[in-house]
Amino acid sequence: MSDDLQNKIAELGMTIRKLKSDKAPSDEIEKEVAKLLALKAELGDDSQTGKFVLKCPKGTRDYNPLQMVIKEEAFSKIIKCFKKHGAVSIDTPVFELKETLTGKYGEDSKLIYDLADQGGEVLSLRYDLTVPFARYVAMNKIQNIKRYHIAKVYRRDNPAMTRGRFREFYQCDFDIAGQYDPMLPDAECVKLAAEILTSLNIGQIIIKVNHRKLLDGMFAACGIPTEKFRSISSSVDKLDKTPWEEVKEEMVKEKGLDEHCANLVGEYVRLNGGKELIEKLEKDEKLSKEKLAMEGLKDMNVLLKFCEIYGVIDMVLFDLSLARGLDYYTGVIFEAVVQGKQHIAKPTANGGDDPGSNAGVGSVAGGGRYDDLVGMFDPKGRKVPCVGISFGIERIFSIMEQKIAEEKLERRTTETEVFVASAQKNLAEKRAELCRMLWDAGIKTEQAYKYNPKLLNQLQYCEENKIPIAVIVGEAELEKGVVKLRKVKTREERDVPRSELVSAIREELKNIN
Amino acid sequence: MSDDLQNKIAELGMTIRKLKSDKAPSDEIEKEVAKLLALKAELGDDSQTGKFVLKCPKGTRDYNPLQMVIKEEAFSKIIKCFKKHGAVSIDTPVFELKETLTGKYGEDSKLIYDLADQGGEVLSLRYDLTVPFARYVAMNKIQNIKRYHIAKVYRRDNPAMTRGRFREFYQCDFDIAGQYDPMLPDAECVKLAAEILTSLNIGQIIIKVNHRKLLDGMFAACGIPTEKFRSISSSVDKLDKTPWEEVKEEMVKEKGLDEHCANLVGEYVRLNGGKELIEKLEKDEKLSKEKLAMEGLKDMNVLLKFCEIYGVIDMVLFDLSLARGLDYYTGVIFEAVVQGKQHIAKPTANGGDDPGSNAGVGSVAGGGRYDDLVGMFDPKGRKVPCVGISFGIERIFSIMEQKIAEEKLERRTTETEVFVASAQKNLAEKRAELCRMLWDAGIKTEQAYKYNPKLLNQLQYCEENKIPIAVIVGEAELEKGVVKLRKVKTREERDVPRSELVSAIREELKNIN
Repeated sequence: MSDDLQNKIAELGMTIRKLKSDKAPSDEIEKEVAKLLALKAELGDDSQTGKFVLKCPKGTRDYNPLQMVIKEEAFSKIIKCFKKHGAVSIDTPVFELKETLTGKYGEDSKLIYDLADQGGEVLSLRYDLTVPFARYVAMNKIQNIKRYHIAKVYRRDNPAMTRGRFREFYQCDFDIAGQYDPMLPDAECVKLAAEILTSLNIGQIIIKVNHRKLLDGMFAACGIPTEKFRSISSSVDKLDKTPWEEVKEEMVKEKGLDEHCANLVGEYVRLNGGKELIEKLEKDEKLSKEKLAMEGLKDMNVLLKFCEIYGVIDMVLFDLSLARGLDYYTGVIFEAVVQGKQHIAKPTANGGDDPGSNAGVGSVAGGGRYDDLVGMFDPKGRKVPCVGISFGIERIFSIMEQKIAEEKLERRTTETEVFVASAQKNLAEKRAELCRMLWDAGIKTEQAYKYNPKLLNQLQYCEENKIPIAVIVGEAELEKGVVKLRKVKTREERDVPRSELVSAIREELKNIN
Repeated sequence: MSDDLQNKIAELGMTIRKLKSDKAPSDEIEKEVAKLLALKAELGDDSQTGKFVLKCPKGTRDYNPLQMVIKEEAFSKIIKCFKKHGAVSIDTPVFELKETLTGKYGEDSKLIYDLADQGGEVLSLRYDLTVPFARYVAMNKIQNIKRYHIAKVYRRDNPAMTRGRFREFYQCDFDIAGQYDPMLPDAECVKLAAEILTSLNIGQIIIKVNHRKLLDGMFAACGIPTEKFRSISSSVDKLDKTPWEEVKEEMVKEKGLDEHCANLVGEYVRLNGGKELIEKLEKDEKLSKEKLAMEGLKDMNVLLKFCEIYGVIDMVLFDLSLARGLDYYTGVIFEAVVQGKQHIAKPTANGGDDPGSNAGVGSVAGGGRYDDLVGMFDPKGRKVPCVGISFGIERIFSIMEQKIAEEKLERRTTETEVFVASAQKNLAEKRAELCRMLWDAGIKTEQAYKYNPKLLNQLQYCEENKIPIAVIVGEAELEKGVVKLRKVKTREERDVPRSELVSAIREELKNIN
């Protein structure tokens, strides 16, 4: 009802705007404004929606041309690395049947965007790329695939846009699905993360690793009842930004955990290290009795061995406090964080992070093994084990943007090579002829969209936009059958016969690049 | 209410699926199934939603790896051409405030996807990229910009997926905004369309052009009242797939047009041609009295002149029956169609096309001038004239896919250059060492994710996936400090010292490419 009213108000607002833009008679406009005010009164004072606001939806942003250049630079590095590891690419729709997403995200399901019921299927916007991937694998009965997928996902979360946390954001996912030997695909995900994050040059990276089976074994060793595992795991997941005392309070007071158990958990989750920590835990009195914990440690051992062979062990930290929020993980879990806070805004006191996103302070990638997800979609429950990693590219963008701003690096937002200018009036058609010649030769060419632009303005445009070459046509040149070729940077000019123009330009561009 | 029930059913369906996948005790599963049946009974017989369906939402599709390769090939050609004409790139969110879209699409507004009201702003999925572009230009107070934007848009239309008509589909838009001299940006859009569609090699292209002012002047000349212009224009727009008699009936019976007027319209809309048609219309007794018509013809004259200079006049057809569905056009309009039906499925009898999309039979691009749209967003109604063209890439994909299938062209879906194989057991770590060496050298490398894969299987994988080089490590090679380098196609093998492996591979790849 109030929705209906809001729609009416929005429509009326647009009508008025259009009338104004069409310069309609003022009494006609006033009549519509009066209607609008009446509707607003009906809606009551608490609503502001009658006023047309020129903005992006909350938690979203436009990318301007410079941001697009930075984004494409990052994507191109990431895709290059995905291809280096032999991945194919797939794409899925931005929305899925709602039931496809149901029961996959635990507590975070409340953050899913639903589409309005306009008749037909019940739909939701995708929350990540992992569940659509699992749906794709099951639907196409795929036994094994290594794929990447770069696309936007949607979460109705509290945005913190200066920290790179949005409601619409890109994920760059790389996953390996198939029945394989332990830790081989998992270790490759760590290697890939190390390669990509190093190539992006965004600062010192640490890749934290842990294992869901070890976590569960640890919870069991601390005397926590099985049904509380996921919920206590969610609490542990907050440790990267919440002090232990607060997390403990949540466990004890909110989740009803025995304080003694909580203290035991506290002992474990402060541990992190490398191979020596695995050895220590293998001998731990309580853990060594837990089959799951021992299985997890065995995996970790192999994982670290391959990380060593792959030359990335120095970036890897085995960290017992790493838990990851999402329900679907079943084995190894990863999270990559940027060290040093120079490029990361501090979290505000009330701005707790979404546990389901990779948005911990400095967190730029996350993932893990999820062996049961495809089976949830298969009519016969046939499982396809999977492991993957997802790069949270918005955070990476904001670090890159900040670096570019700090280093005052200049980036072009176009790739134009030649600007065709005219020296006198009435030469628009002559310029068009030259443009045609250059376009047809594949040379990136612009011209002024004016019949009689001033030469100075045209040359200024070249300098401002860093277009390397200007081709100038004037009456004198026309008579001689030549054009002036001007190097914009040095302002050197020389005459070139029209028939030689394309090759002369190609030669110049070779020297410039 | 029924929605709530459907959600419960969907959730229960997932629970049961998970129980089955977890191999839970069968009595536990049966209990949940009983609950599900009860809920379904409550919902009544008309609903099928309780059964989990493994599918994409209606009117959408996944892209598999081969389709992605074709898509990226098309995008890369299109983007190259956009950049050749000096365009920058921008991106906008997939949804907008609902009121941003309100009042822009005329009758087609009913096809807009709304998001559910989950509190907060009222949102809709974008219907095209033009309105978000106009919002962007107004919001950022931009005076002029030439940008491209490739992204998916959403229309709750009747899908006809075999004909390349989807509810989620890509648009590739190129627009020029700014106060410029007549027809210079407009003619460049035609030139660009000709270049792109030629480079895509999808068959003979015709670019139809017309002018909204000429259409309006023509309607006036036929005695049609002003308030019926847009509605009669919508009827004319159907002429590319509906016979005149049916369109006339719609005009007369549904839209209440005088039959005499309709007959006059019928005389005009059957006309098409080139410059000679402009001359004829300039002398037309009725048209020559209409100021708007004369303005339109003057523009068309200039447009065709520049199309001639740009070398694309042979692809251009001035066609009085071209009307375009969308409300916002104010000047020149374009539509590119593929000639010859070999690659185009025939429309079904009841499958009328969405007048707002570029989905006429064979239509692969459309656009025009819209000088008032930015002003509708500007608080002061400040106008920024725009012209642009949008490529309907799904139709282009289906033509390309069909060609590839017909010509039995083989495409790789990965770019892997080297496969690292082992000749005996227990060499997984040795393989990993080699992979590290190659990855770190930037060479695209894969290996088997098995500890002890069979050599034959590994070599077969290379042949099936057209990986050009295999590097084989075995005990004999390890002793000698070499590896075997195998050219997969010719099966030639030679030993290479490990220290020379990277350069030997680079050399081989040069010869292969």
